[in-house]
Amino acid sequence: MTDRLYLFDTTLRDGQQTQGVQFSASEKTQIALALDALGVDYIEGGWPGANPTDSEFFASAPQTRATMTAFGMTKRSGRSAENDEVLAGVVNAETPAVCLVGKTHDFHVTTALGISLEENLENIRASIAHLGAKGREALFDAEHFFDGYKANPDYALKAVHAAYGAGARWIVLCDTNGGTLPADVYRMTKAVIDSGIPGDHLGIHCHDDTGNAVANSLAAIDAGARQVQGTLNGLGERCGNTNLVTLIPTLLLKEPYKATLKTGVSDESLHGLLKTSRMLDDILNRVPLRSAPYIGASAFAHKAGLHASAILKDPSTYEHIPPETVGNARVIPMSNQAGQSNLRARLVSAGIEVAAGDPALGRILDAVKAREDQGYAYDGAQASFELLARRELGLSPAFFEVQRYRVTVERRADRVTMSEAVVEVKIGAEKMMSVSDSLDEAGSDRGPVNALSKALAKDLGPYQAVIDDLHLVDFKVRITQGGTEAVTRVIIDSEDGQGRRWSTVGVSANIVDASFEALLEAVNWKLIRDVGQP
Amino acid sequence: MTDRLYLFDTTLRDGQQTQGVQFSASEKTQIALALDALGVDYIEGGWPGANPTDSEFFASAPQTRATMTAFGMTKRSGRSAENDEVLAGVVNAETPAVCLVGKTHDFHVTTALGISLEENLENIRASIAHLGAKGREALFDAEHFFDGYKANPDYALKAVHAAYGAGARWIVLCDTNGGTLPADVYRMTKAVIDSGIPGDHLGIHCHDDTGNAVANSLAAIDAGARQVQGTLNGLGERCGNTNLVTLIPTLLLKEPYKATLKTGVSDESLHGLLKTSRMLDDILNRVPLRSAPYIGASAFAHKAGLHASAILKDPSTYEHIPPETVGNARVIPMSNQAGQSNLRARLVSAGIEVAAGDPALGRILDAVKAREDQGYAYDGAQASFELLARRELGLSPAFFEVQRYRVTVERRADRVTMSEAVVEVKIGAEKMMSVSDSLDEAGSDRGPVNALSKALAKDLGPYQAVIDDLHLVDFKVRITQGGTEAVTRVIIDSEDGQGRRWSTVGVSANIVDASFEALLEAVNWKLIRDVGQP
Repeated sequence: MTDRLYLFDTTLRDGQQTQGVQFSASEKTQIALALDALGVDYIEGGWPGANPTDSEFFASAPQTRATMTAFGMTKRSGRSAENDEVLAGVVNAETPAVCLVGKTHDFHVTTALGISLEENLENIRASIAHLGAKGREALFDAEHFFDGYKANPDYALKAVHAAYGAGARWIVLCDTNGGTLPADVYRMTKAVIDSGIPGDHLGIHCHDDTGNAVANSLAAIDAGARQVQGTLNGLGERCGNTNLVTLIPTLLLKEPYKATLKTGVSDESLHGLLKTSRMLDDILNRVPLRSAPYIGASAFAHKAGLHASAILKDPSTYEHIPPETVGNARVIPMSNQAGQSNLRARLVSAGIEVAAGDPALGRILDAVKAREDQGYAYDGAQASFELLARRELGLSPAFFEVQRYRVTVERRADRVTMSEAVVEVKIGAEKMMSVSDSLDEAGSDRGPVNALSKALAKDLGPYQAVIDDLHLVDFKVRITQGGTEAVTRVIIDSEDGQGRRWSTVGVSANIVDASFEALLEAVNWKLIRDVGQP
Repeated sequence: MTDRLYLFDTTLRDGQQTQGVQFSASEKTQIALALDALGVDYIEGGWPGANPTDSEFFASAPQTRATMTAFGMTKRSGRSAENDEVLAGVVNAETPAVCLVGKTHDFHVTTALGISLEENLENIRASIAHLGAKGREALFDAEHFFDGYKANPDYALKAVHAAYGAGARWIVLCDTNGGTLPADVYRMTKAVIDSGIPGDHLGIHCHDDTGNAVANSLAAIDAGARQVQGTLNGLGERCGNTNLVTLIPTLLLKEPYKATLKTGVSDESLHGLLKTSRMLDDILNRVPLRSAPYIGASAFAHKAGLHASAILKDPSTYEHIPPETVGNARVIPMSNQAGQSNLRARLVSAGIEVAAGDPALGRILDAVKAREDQGYAYDGAQASFELLARRELGLSPAFFEVQRYRVTVERRADRVTMSEAVVEVKIGAEKMMSVSDSLDEAGSDRGPVNALSKALAKDLGPYQAVIDDLHLVDFKVRITQGGTEAVTRVIIDSEDGQGRRWSTVGVSANIVDASFEALLEAVNWKLIRDVGQP
């Protein structure tokens, strides 16, 4: 027998409380549709009336299978639910469900609201009953429930029972300040169930202030709660909310949840999890967290040599799930700790088979070591590693040759900076020269590396079409040690229209030179993929 | 009654398995000293013999109060512990403690090692006994213990008892693949204690592959384990290890741990936690994670209006701990009251006294905010912060004005790159122009920023003598957000002959422009110190 577990996403409401995050209404629509495709049950879209963006979003909210939910707060004292204009703003959004936050911690009732404890209970009852009268599914966010229960269990229970008795479909226990630990969440959720609110009417809403948001959510589910709230990528106030991108695979793939619970997320939509996570990073222009559970770029990266050799025999030796389940992939990074088995595994994942014991393996390892001594780093630049290995294996086609480049940056007082690059390339017997500035559409100068990149991409003769969809998405610079002197290491992340993403490295005492090397590597890697042989 | 809980840090060993991380021996020493100051009990320095860096580190390991520990693996089959050269490499590092990893999951013994189950037990026994004979404190990392226990509890227990019986001081239960959930960690740790290994001989080593590393560590402590392993900032293979920066404040500040456990970390060293975390980010040139529990820049940022107004009445309404406990600070957007006292303290440390209530304070705060929106960061660039404040206070002398600069980088096939800069400066009515290449003594090109720096320093007329001893010691580049577009932030560390060291910042979409701005700031800061007024 399986229980239905409901997923409630609040990326568009609590996620918007993240420092530096401000979604537009159209971004909210894009995220809502992605959440719907993933299979969440509720989408909390914002607080209608609280700000123009949220009102605009609800005015033309997308059609979703998931229940669209408006957020607000219980009515204030001294007026009826019908006459509270803040509550009216929420109800007027005409969503099928409404979630109202209310106080359950006595200290907050008296300190923050300055009203009597009984008055607060009455505000909860009247507000929830009002939603029922308007035909809405009512949810009650029990703010500071766990802190409240610690301070005054009797009052905290009275508050959630006021909402439940008034007809709330869900009572959501909120760890608003994020300081509660899993054992306490478990114990207090059990206490609520023991007090008469069944688990299939209980939700859990956690924050990550002690790094336990996911564990706290699991603890509440273990105790019997059957709705869980969270956000994509763990966005949210302060340290963020429960990260649904982390929680969902655990619920679908791990026992006891896999055998005993059912969610609206299918195995197929789970495959799209990585893409959904990256979509949000793209909207926010954030660099995805490499170490993120399940979907991080390093989540299945095996750097230790002993691990890599066992992975070759059986991936389950050092992987807790098959990476493709969540749309991720295995990575065997190169580093000077790696041995030949690491190397062979890494070559296989680049599509290159080399037999064990092949002397080329030793040559590649030596080349990696020599380059790392010069300041190169290959475990963050897989594509450059592949190109290095191909050179040692004689599998490196010469598409083109750069004869010369020159880039000039100039600034005069009170005028914008100007960068201009010239790149001269030889393809076969033919020479071609391209010139480019680095102005973007808004007329600002993007600098010398951008100018070089544009000039190089301007005319690559027969290969032009292949690189038209290539663009730089990230650029990292580090001063490091190359032999006895300080050198600059540049790592460039590139992307193309097919959604491929790859990283290349360049090293030089001259930052422009290092960048240009990484740029050339990025172009060559793509040409090998899309052209094969010249 | 309180139990002693031992903290075991493996930043220098498992943390080094992070994709993209490669510490130098001197960086390892710097980190070890910071860990010692924090108060951890064990520092695992690396695997002596496995790579040149680790061997170099142990050859001149720093003196620490914490027990320096070398990592290795149990002896291989077919030779004695005395004759295993890998084990010998570890023992020869002469550390007071040695931690050996060994198999406890039957599947790994037969699949990865290809030896018999009994042979593996004998390898464990002999290796641990060998450490005892050499007078070392022995630790046994029980690899894949939880997966092993699930598959074959009897064998997993036999393996840990083999180590315990042979004299291991600590048996460390490792969730090597990171897929175990808290309830299972609790249950299986209890089972080990019930089998006869006391909790004060049990350690826990977790990975964050399900986002539960911290919760799993707490679960094992709840079950009775009294050593916990982890890393600074949660570095480590794949998704990382238990983040000690997150775990330590929970252990010191939260119940039941606060009342029942004692660690080597004092309340005073806890104040330095944020700085220790940032030091590691600096070494790795990583952007600190804003949402990190306890020490993230957003961990005490109150964006919701309702939260911010309650915080003004009583911070405990929306804060689970006082932020200063861990060296962090509250962030309340729009709150000039809290901001101004911070600002005055900062100005005093730059030698500038401003009276409370001076309207200039508001102007400086606004200017900082406007610049931070453009991508500037003043936390790591105190000298630029001082210059900004001086401009608002009218205390910023105009020594010289840059009329124009131009820098060219050129490379021809098979020849070294050449950079050349021209800088035109006006001092009073006089104009002067300087030209410089960027070749160093060895004839290598140091790049455009170096050329600009040399050209600028070539002729500053009356100020020339003052800046003759100025040189750049570090140069950090980050791509960040400036308004709606990506910009480059450059931070330059400078030094002079008097041993002063200061940091300045520049921001632009053009990396050369950003560098030049930081360079000018560096020169101006020194001129204020050494010239005062022009």
